[in-house]
Amino acid sequence: MVVVMKAGATPRQIEGVVAAIREFGFSAHVSEGLERTVIGVVGSASGRDEVMQAMLALDAVDRVVPVGAPYKLASRVHQSARTRVQIGPNCVFGGETFAVIAGPCSVEDEEQIVRTAVAVREAGATALRGGAYKPRTSPYSFQGLQAEGLRMLAAAREASGLPVVTELLDPRHIEIVDAYADMFQIGARNMQNFELLKEVGRSHKPVLLKRGMSATIDEWLMAAEYVLSEGNAQVVLCERGIRTYEPGTRFTLDLSAVALAQQLTHLPVIVDPSQAAGRANLVAPLARAACALGADGLIVEVHPDPPHARSDAQQQLRFDQFSEMMQDVARIAAIAQRQPT
Amino acid sequence: MVVVMKAGATPRQIEGVVAAIREFGFSAHVSEGLERTVIGVVGSASGRDEVMQAMLALDAVDRVVPVGAPYKLASRVHQSARTRVQIGPNCVFGGETFAVIAGPCSVEDEEQIVRTAVAVREAGATALRGGAYKPRTSPYSFQGLQAEGLRMLAAAREASGLPVVTELLDPRHIEIVDAYADMFQIGARNMQNFELLKEVGRSHKPVLLKRGMSATIDEWLMAAEYVLSEGNAQVVLCERGIRTYEPGTRFTLDLSAVALAQQLTHLPVIVDPSQAAGRANLVAPLARAACALGADGLIVEVHPDPPHARSDAQQQLRFDQFSEMMQDVARIAAIAQRQPT
Amino acid sequence: MVVVMKAGATPRQIEGVVAAIREFGFSAHVSEGLERTVIGVVGSASGRDEVMQAMLALDAVDRVVPVGAPYKLASRVHQSARTRVQIGPNCVFGGETFAVIAGPCSVEDEEQIVRTAVAVREAGATALRGGAYKPRTSPYSFQGLQAEGLRMLAAAREASGLPVVTELLDPRHIEIVDAYADMFQIGARNMQNFELLKEVGRSHKPVLLKRGMSATIDEWLMAAEYVLSEGNAQVVLCERGIRTYEPGTRFTLDLSAVALAQQLTHLPVIVDPSQAAGRANLVAPLARAACALGADGLIVEVHPDPPHARSDAQQQLRFDQFSEMMQDVARIAAIAQRQPT
Amino acid sequence: MVVVMKAGATPRQIEGVVAAIREFGFSAHVSEGLERTVIGVVGSASGRDEVMQAMLALDAVDRVVPVGAPYKLASRVHQSARTRVQIGPNCVFGGETFAVIAGPCSVEDEEQIVRTAVAVREAGATALRGGAYKPRTSPYSFQGLQAEGLRMLAAAREASGLPVVTELLDPRHIEIVDAYADMFQIGARNMQNFELLKEVGRSHKPVLLKRGMSATIDEWLMAAEYVLSEGNAQVVLCERGIRTYEPGTRFTLDLSAVALAQQLTHLPVIVDPSQAAGRANLVAPLARAACALGADGLIVEVHPDPPHARSDAQQQLRFDQFSEMMQDVARIAAIAQRQPT
Repeated sequence: MVVVMKAGATPRQIEGVVAAIREFGFSAHVSEGLERTVIGVVGSASGRDEVMQAMLALDAVDRVVPVGAPYKLASRVHQSARTRVQIGPNCVFGGETFAVIAGPCSVEDEEQIVRTAVAVREAGATALRGGAYKPRTSPYSFQGLQAEGLRMLAAAREASGLPVVTELLDPRHIEIVDAYADMFQIGARNMQNFELLKEVGRSHKPVLLKRGMSATIDEWLMAAEYVLSEGNAQVVLCERGIRTYEPGTRFTLDLSAVALAQQLTHLPVIVDPSQAAGRANLVAPLARAACALGADGLIVEVHPDPPHARSDAQQQLRFDQFSEMMQDVARIAAIAQRQPT
Repeated sequence: MVVVMKAGATPRQIEGVVAAIREFGFSAHVSEGLERTVIGVVGSASGRDEVMQAMLALDAVDRVVPVGAPYKLASRVHQSARTRVQIGPNCVFGGETFAVIAGPCSVEDEEQIVRTAVAVREAGATALRGGAYKPRTSPYSFQGLQAEGLRMLAAAREASGLPVVTELLDPRHIEIVDAYADMFQIGARNMQNFELLKEVGRSHKPVLLKRGMSATIDEWLMAAEYVLSEGNAQVVLCERGIRTYEPGTRFTLDLSAVALAQQLTHLPVIVDPSQAAGRANLVAPLARAACALGADGLIVEVHPDPPHARSDAQQQLRFDQFSEMMQDVARIAAIAQRQPT
Repeated sequence: MVVVMKAGATPRQIEGVVAAIREFGFSAHVSEGLERTVIGVVGSASGRDEVMQAMLALDAVDRVVPVGAPYKLASRVHQSARTRVQIGPNCVFGGETFAVIAGPCSVEDEEQIVRTAVAVREAGATALRGGAYKPRTSPYSFQGLQAEGLRMLAAAREASGLPVVTELLDPRHIEIVDAYADMFQIGARNMQNFELLKEVGRSHKPVLLKRGMSATIDEWLMAAEYVLSEGNAQVVLCERGIRTYEPGTRFTLDLSAVALAQQLTHLPVIVDPSQAAGRANLVAPLARAACALGADGLIVEVHPDPPHARSDAQQQLRFDQFSEMMQDVARIAAIAQRQPT
Repeated sequence: MVVVMKAGATPRQIEGVVAAIREFGFSAHVSEGLERTVIGVVGSASGRDEVMQAMLALDAVDRVVPVGAPYKLASRVHQSARTRVQIGPNCVFGGETFAVIAGPCSVEDEEQIVRTAVAVREAGATALRGGAYKPRTSPYSFQGLQAEGLRMLAAAREASGLPVVTELLDPRHIEIVDAYADMFQIGARNMQNFELLKEVGRSHKPVLLKRGMSATIDEWLMAAEYVLSEGNAQVVLCERGIRTYEPGTRFTLDLSAVALAQQLTHLPVIVDPSQAAGRANLVAPLARAACALGADGLIVEVHPDPPHARSDAQQQLRFDQFSEMMQDVARIAAIAQRQPT
């Protein structure tokens, strides 16, 4: 990192900073500019945060600028080859194909989830989503069918052949969700639920890690680092819209972050246009855009009868809408040198 | 709620919306404007979210506008008298006094926490803070002393007489934290960890609920509603800065939200200037501002030797800085018709 | 619009609101809910803002919700057929083709702009961009060649056959810019420079109106309304990234807003990936995404030698990079039922 | 500035960067870390932006970190003594007193502005505000009385003795506004209207420079630099709320930025709570907070009859509300070692 001194820092203050750097086991390279002195700090990455904060606590220090990325295992500097994550027979993230996870916001009953699974598979999806444990803004909203929902997802997997992706909300549910799911989803609201990240890090199951609604790319990759550092290398990142001042859409889909994350990390990065837009009629354009950009896949909400859905009715696609969207996506994927399986 | 139809919606589409509203057990009042039809929806608040989303899933509907607040128990409409929350003998939130919780970001060792507790009490603080379980952006940063830290907090309470406020991160820790703390803190990153909210809602201990870093005021009050709806009425809200585009400060302290929340809810609202600013030299001005605004109290980070702190070194006050800040706050509190105990 | 009364508003207060509504020449439809009264306000759109603000100044009013859009001429309700804007022989916005404006950030000398014009035409661009008057954050940065730059742009048009798009900063420059440009560009920083909007509204030349960096979609369309209401119907909108908390990119490209704006207005909407990303290596992925989404075109920064550019060196493409990008865009445009001319 | 190379940059690439730095007339100090090389760039500040952008255009460069502030004349490094700006006999910004500018959003007629001027002076205000040229989001909203409004402001100055602060929107109006105003106000939407900034920079009249609604502190100080660099040293900064995701208030008042700006610049910094909150009932708490924080003054909207105001009715105070607010502010100013004149 680089420590920028305040203009007018005295030699004594500079010496104090150098001494503090050495106290942490790092070495210091002082370089004087016309107006300010800058001190390069060289040493092992562990303890990096502590040194940065300690420097900032010193009066004569103006700013501290990190030089490398704060994450290691998630970085392309650490691993240049792209990670491939496979769930089920036909769903690969980070390979040559374009993976599409589809299904309802919530599992509502067995018929609903089974019909949807079969329909999305017919349209070209390679994995099934469906919420059994639901994080809801209001305590009075439908909270999901929970364990019963998980059993229905298993029935839908049986009927469709699609692997199941479902959300894990609470470390106390990990055993039961692990028994039914092929991939753990960590939702945006839990991206910095570090105890939960450590738990899925200790499992051997792929993890779909959604970006928090106000997380920076660095924080998102640090959340992945929590999972990787516990020994689980099977992480897929998912951009799902960030919070901005614009009220016209539920969130603002940040496709630049997808392209940039793919440069910074070897992990696959997919896109959730349904959560981002919060409006069914924006899902297809955003899905096409994500595919043309070069994202590794999509997760899309599909429901047999959206106006009667028990959650997020406004953003789920009907089967025919999803099918039409998939045809466009397939043609774009072909150009983007991807095949939608 | 009010359903706004698209311009050009046909009578048949309007009838369809009315039928859908009745299907949910609500009644519909149609009113035609020059360009658009608007439909008032009247009925019980439960099922409100579901109706809203179902309406949005209909093609001819442009927007749905909620009329009342989404929260009930937290609302001043429900309870006009302000809630008072007391912890320990001298610390009251929502009364005539201005409550100040102070202490280090993390508990580091017994001497550190005991010295700090005594020092902040001398300066006028009425409760002690200190993190035992720490949510850290990086898995490589200090994660807190955990159970051992809790025991040290108890020793500091013994030495100082101050009640203890400490963070609960994981529902599996609730028993042990309950055994040592006088108030549970729910951090910004867990404001929508709904399973955790339900757990503290079932306890009988006061809860300090921080605003999520990108939570709206409505979402913050809905998080409080989770706790209240489980039966625990002892909730204190805390504004701690929101995420904006401005890079000069760690977060942007939203004092307007404090004043507005005090109009919307009967729960006390305090301010955390340390987390918001992320710089020790902004803490005192923001603390004075919060007091003059009419906030119900503060939570401030104080450390015996900030440059050697194991976390957030840059934003913790030294004892002398805290003491000076408290003198200014006391004089402003006197004008604001509050007494700092 | 709909006026939502506070819970507990008295009959007298409700009557006061009704009287105030009538005073403005609107009629009022009162509808009582279980907890709150809602009043529909019906009447002509002019005076709408004044009524809204007056209602908000009354004590018993909780909120006022607009029902229709604030813009008229820009709305698809007003005109359902999409507007086509043509500049030069081959550049149409809003038709079946995908329009691409390309060129350097700033005009630097005649050779630079002529070479670039020829090169981008070869690669498939249909219009030339180049800044003569430059809005720069710092007074010490290069401010553009001004009138001389305009003459060089004309030389480049002569050499390449491409029409010229260039920024107008100041109403006092309108005559000279009008003499050289085929399309006025109004930059993001001037989106709410209403005097400037009125000026270009009185001209007969097409206008490229960039979205302000923190403008909502409604505000952007209201800025277009300023131009339209003065009599100039030739407006093309351009999304160029909004300001968010994410530091990894210069701005956050908001493609959802492009898709949504195309539903709300009949005006063409194009995308500027260069300004948004602020990094050359993100321009091509974002350009592909914009095309697949269904945008009406692009504006892209291209320079013969980016590291020696006098402004925005980091985000300009080399000729070979632009050419490669255009090949991908052409293939996607073909699928998106667009032809890049 | 400091250039951070990508991990894995080759010696040849590093040499290339060093050569490019020298080409600009700067010198380069190379320092190798464990993983990355960092290059310090030393030299005169002019050309700084160009070097930064050129570095970013080089493939092997990861990031460029500025070391000093981008502004010079506005910086406390350049001038440590605080600037005092005086308008009229009793209104000083940046001195020991707390300055309060008050008056209506818009000048509506002579009686309105004269009555208001007298009333706010009685309550303790030391300057009068009132918009004659109004920047309005909608072309259909009241655009101000313009030249006639200026004459009414002069009449109000005559009647009250208060100096007049009014907005300048267009460089073509500078002569007439100069003839009537005691201080030019540059509004938030024009903070980066650089041609306008240069014009007021060339005048000899004090300037009130509002922060743009999404401007960083650095950009705000750079806008001040435009005025200062043209020779006008009489600049007062004004924070008026920034755009965030929170819908509960019109803007989010950023008091942290006020405290931070006062550390970075010698120019006075005042606060506009009316524009920020957009609700009359939040103005007084925010005004108290701004005063306790240590701001140099306020600008507040006051109207004889807010529900009948022609603009911003919802956020203007009545005379009695303003008077009550001023009493609280005076008591806090006394503690904050300021006297409200």
